[in-house]
Amino acid sequence: MSAKTVFPEPVVGVDLGATKIYTIVADKDGKILSASKKPAKGERGSDVVLDRVAETVDDALADAGMTRKDVGALGMAVPSPVNQNTGVALFSPNLNWRSLPVKDMLEKRLGLKVFPDNDVNLGTLGEYTFGAGKGAEVMAGFFVGTGIGGGIIMNGKVVHGRNFTGGELGHMVIMADGPQCGCGTRGCLEAVASRIAITRDLRAAMERGVPTMLTDLLGTDTDRVKSGVLKKAYLAGDELTTGVINRAMRRVGIAVASIVNAIGPDVVVIGGGLFEALGEDLMPIVRNAATLHYFGPSGDGVAVELAALGDDSVPLGAAAFAAGKIA
Amino acid sequence: MSAKTVFPEPVVGVDLGATKIYTIVADKDGKILSASKKPAKGERGSDVVLDRVAETVDDALADAGMTRKDVGALGMAVPSPVNQNTGVALFSPNLNWRSLPVKDMLEKRLGLKVFPDNDVNLGTLGEYTFGAGKGAEVMAGFFVGTGIGGGIIMNGKVVHGRNFTGGELGHMVIMADGPQCGCGTRGCLEAVASRIAITRDLRAAMERGVPTMLTDLLGTDTDRVKSGVLKKAYLAGDELTTGVINRAMRRVGIAVASIVNAIGPDVVVIGGGLFEALGEDLMPIVRNAATLHYFGPSGDGVAVELAALGDDSVPLGAAAFAAGKIA
Repeated sequence: MSAKTVFPEPVVGVDLGATKIYTIVADKDGKILSASKKPAKGERGSDVVLDRVAETVDDALADAGMTRKDVGALGMAVPSPVNQNTGVALFSPNLNWRSLPVKDMLEKRLGLKVFPDNDVNLGTLGEYTFGAGKGAEVMAGFFVGTGIGGGIIMNGKVVHGRNFTGGELGHMVIMADGPQCGCGTRGCLEAVASRIAITRDLRAAMERGVPTMLTDLLGTDTDRVKSGVLKKAYLAGDELTTGVINRAMRRVGIAVASIVNAIGPDVVVIGGGLFEALGEDLMPIVRNAATLHYFGPSGDGVAVELAALGDDSVPLGAAAFAAGKIA
Repeated sequence: MSAKTVFPEPVVGVDLGATKIYTIVADKDGKILSASKKPAKGERGSDVVLDRVAETVDDALADAGMTRKDVGALGMAVPSPVNQNTGVALFSPNLNWRSLPVKDMLEKRLGLKVFPDNDVNLGTLGEYTFGAGKGAEVMAGFFVGTGIGGGIIMNGKVVHGRNFTGGELGHMVIMADGPQCGCGTRGCLEAVASRIAITRDLRAAMERGVPTMLTDLLGTDTDRVKSGVLKKAYLAGDELTTGVINRAMRRVGIAVASIVNAIGPDVVVIGGGLFEALGEDLMPIVRNAATLHYFGPSGDGVAVELAALGDDSVPLGAAAFAAGKIA
């Protein structure tokens, strides 16, 4: 967190995920004054979810000794692309939203200026403003978890692209005609390097009878290969697990090189659940693969860094996004 | 060419290629008033090449009834990344240049303000300013010839990136661990879809004894598979040629989708020798493959267009680049 003033006024940052809401109040220095969390209850519909968001905002403000009048704006991260002209969330499979006017809906509830955007875009902006990307001119972020999200910041602004899907770096194709991706196409980075892809490859190997300590760790419950289990097997040196994960990480590195060759960022930040669990071990593999795939001098001096803010990257990015709108 | 004033003053645009120099004078409307061409004679060294560039400039100005005093600046496209802070061309294998101060060297010869940049960046800018990308907010260009070059324009500006290699879209990796690329790495778009890659695949098939009319067209001279020969065999429906080229074009389409998913341009322009020869036939294949690889709505309304300016894209882009610097 910076010690100097970075926001024109205190702001609220909301991370609305598929399962939980995490809301912060940040002061002018970008310091988190207070926080509030609640389950999102997405299955009860968007009105309930947004009521609950409003409750976390009031809770966090109260904790900071503030009221809605004391903050300049609210930034909200949602698991959906967001039309920046209308504030409409375009589609969120996880929350079962389609064309939902989240900006209007939350502004009516709170009487605050609300600025929504995609959660991974805002996580990238959080790392750019306060984390591993501080000082970059152009930054790319990859967030490797169940899927792979991404974001691009150029000259302080999120790159939204024509259809507000900009920064979908997990859907650069790095293996033409490769494995099926959850997005419906083939060979995306997400299809070969996300936790879903890693789990798929581990299961297939286990079904072929490849020996692994995962058999003991998971029993029959191969549906639930969480980062914690992967971490345990990886750190124990389990041959199958390290092989599959390291191959996936080389592919992340290849995608890093692709975006460096295409747009030339100063800094690439890698985060997400898998890197929160194993970042120190995985970053050298990502960096080496990137180095092998840079075009000429394209990677000279490019910093490929582990994300620094953990769960705070998204609400801090949301706060920074809102602050940028009222600056 | 636009009918309205687009440049603050008439400008000179130079396309310095590995083998030839093509120089134009453009008026305030971006109309080409005159042109001059000369062999580059790169083998005689950079001083000779830049003397010859200066001669084409004076020839073209004389043809337009102008002197150096009548133009505001000169833009120069070179086959090299160019440090935009210093005007130094970083490396050109074709001209055998390393760290050559082209801006200073040509300014001394001409007494004009000189603005050099990479030739494919400027070809992209030419298409953006006057050709198939007119009116775009964000545009990407792919130029498929011997190799594959690219460029990105955002908000009217060439994206140079940290090391001035921005826009190297031919070196996005689309086939991890795939064929060797001329750049030293593996699986780049250029390694699977350029004329070098197409020729490699055709030769390998011919060596395996696959029947093809290329055997008659080429005789033993498989070193010289030019666009003209490919065009002839392709249009005649030669099974090997159409199969290899169509597969390459699907990979170009995959790369189009990758950059659309990553940064969300409005327009993607495809040009270069292969598309000058066969563009109308190849564009539907590129578009279909792109459509199959867009993430969600990322490709909605994105125009994937054949380049419109042919050889004029580069010198017109050079002119536009210089005009933008003095505007």
